[in-house]
Amino acid sequence: MDMAHEDSFAARLDGAARDVAALLAALLSETPLEGEIGRPPHLMQAMRHGVLNGGKRLRPFLVIETVRMLGGPRDAALRVAAALECIHCYSLIHDDLPAMDDDDLRRGQPTVHVAFDEATAILAGDALLTMAFDILAAPETHLPDQARLALIGQLSRAAGVGGMVGGQALDLHAERVAPDEAGIVRLQAMKTGALLRYACAAGALTSGADAQTLARMTRFGEIIGLAFQLADDLLDVTSDAATLGKAAGKDAGRGKGTLVSLHGVDAARARLDTLVQEAAVLLEPFGDAGHTLVETARFIASRDR
Amino acid sequence: MDMAHEDSFAARLDGAARDVAALLAALLSETPLEGEIGRPPHLMQAMRHGVLNGGKRLRPFLVIETVRMLGGPRDAALRVAAALECIHCYSLIHDDLPAMDDDDLRRGQPTVHVAFDEATAILAGDALLTMAFDILAAPETHLPDQARLALIGQLSRAAGVGGMVGGQALDLHAERVAPDEAGIVRLQAMKTGALLRYACAAGALTSGADAQTLARMTRFGEIIGLAFQLADDLLDVTSDAATLGKAAGKDAGRGKGTLVSLHGVDAARARLDTLVQEAAVLLEPFGDAGHTLVETARFIASRDR
Repeated sequence: MDMAHEDSFAARLDGAARDVAALLAALLSETPLEGEIGRPPHLMQAMRHGVLNGGKRLRPFLVIETVRMLGGPRDAALRVAAALECIHCYSLIHDDLPAMDDDDLRRGQPTVHVAFDEATAILAGDALLTMAFDILAAPETHLPDQARLALIGQLSRAAGVGGMVGGQALDLHAERVAPDEAGIVRLQAMKTGALLRYACAAGALTSGADAQTLARMTRFGEIIGLAFQLADDLLDVTSDAATLGKAAGKDAGRGKGTLVSLHGVDAARARLDTLVQEAAVLLEPFGDAGHTLVETARFIASRDR
Repeated sequence: MDMAHEDSFAARLDGAARDVAALLAALLSETPLEGEIGRPPHLMQAMRHGVLNGGKRLRPFLVIETVRMLGGPRDAALRVAAALECIHCYSLIHDDLPAMDDDDLRRGQPTVHVAFDEATAILAGDALLTMAFDILAAPETHLPDQARLALIGQLSRAAGVGGMVGGQALDLHAERVAPDEAGIVRLQAMKTGALLRYACAAGALTSGADAQTLARMTRFGEIIGLAFQLADDLLDVTSDAATLGKAAGKDAGRGKGTLVSLHGVDAARARLDTLVQEAAVLLEPFGDAGHTLVETARFIASRDR
């Protein structure tokens, strides 16, 4: 990878993160929207604490870059990206709760239940989850009705009992009964894979893509999800707490199996290379326009190096 | 009220509750839908525990009866009713958590976090909230795209930070700083009023009603919300734990103000009578077809007698 490309990728990632954060800040203002009775300042503050925290905005970036590649509308892409980020941030707020992963820090800052209290953290998560659907349903998301309904329908399935939330439930259970390899793959596809897959599918839906392109981007998102999880599991083994910014070796310490613990670091790295190649082949039809998304796959796969 | 009417009202309420419960049971099956990766049995069990609990299904009844009055499609009404009940039930599961109201019993049964555990209760609530939007977005809810989007958009505003969730946040805060009368009215309009108002508005949207009818039913729903809360506050003062099935005088004991504590029982009863009259006047244009909804207003207002 030459430096010019790397710089432009990093700049593009940063730029998208800034644009999404600016939109999220506007959406999390204290002015009630039509049909709302009021917005309690304390709850809004907790929501902003959980959302405007300097995240990389990887899921939004996937939406935005898919829409850019397919020539779709950028304004709508930003709103879809913001909705997805609301879901991601709510899941972090709830995952951090004492009854769940019990984490006090995220990105070096106190988690929402520490900075506020548990009840407020539960409600801030609930409100962000609800707001995601508000953003997608609103006419301000200038897309055909069918596209907005498809975005809502697919998001609910990616984020709900058959996706992210179900994966979190399986993950809690995995601390008591270790799943076999098929169980690990399923758990990860639900817990982290579903939203990453959705990000790319949502980009296609936002762009009005045909069924074949939607299927291709959905598959691309699946590969991104597999690579993300594998790189995460590698990080958990190879990083120390200082680089990671959270307790390292935590998953292994809890006795949760990962594909890395089953097959070893070398096999995981080889699999990551294969996934990046597969991602690149999938995007060949888009030529140079697909370059940034292939870079994204490479970026995600190499987070531990 | 003559006995024949009362019987037929009770039978209608029971019948609707049975139909909604049957649909909810089907929606909460363990078979994954298209786009879902899997449905963890343990989480589904917790969701069913929180939903299939013999509730009166008052909000669903308001949807169904509004659609019946306006001549809309009953199948769609049932699905909209089920979506709304998912929201109501998720809110009860989260409200019952130790960090919130810390209730061990609901309808004489262990609450979800007692029957399962806190993490599972948080996730079951999250999954039900998400599922509500899935139900409304799905093509199985045979309504025009515009109607489904309006139902989703209005639900997100009624249930989110500017409605129910925001009201719950204000309620927690009210335990520390007692609100004035305007603050109490606002809190109650958000916490309990917003979903009841939505129920009636959703019935109008499901029926393809014109803007004037939608506004009329939204106002009717507001009145239902006011009456519901006032009757609840009266119950809190006048009932004992045996009749109420939960700890009585709990709100007063926590020092939360209510309109009953500010103005007294007699003023509250007089206000309830006025609200029922206002409800009846609003539905006059619908003639006999509006009879059941007026009965519903009366039923809600007289729960303490």
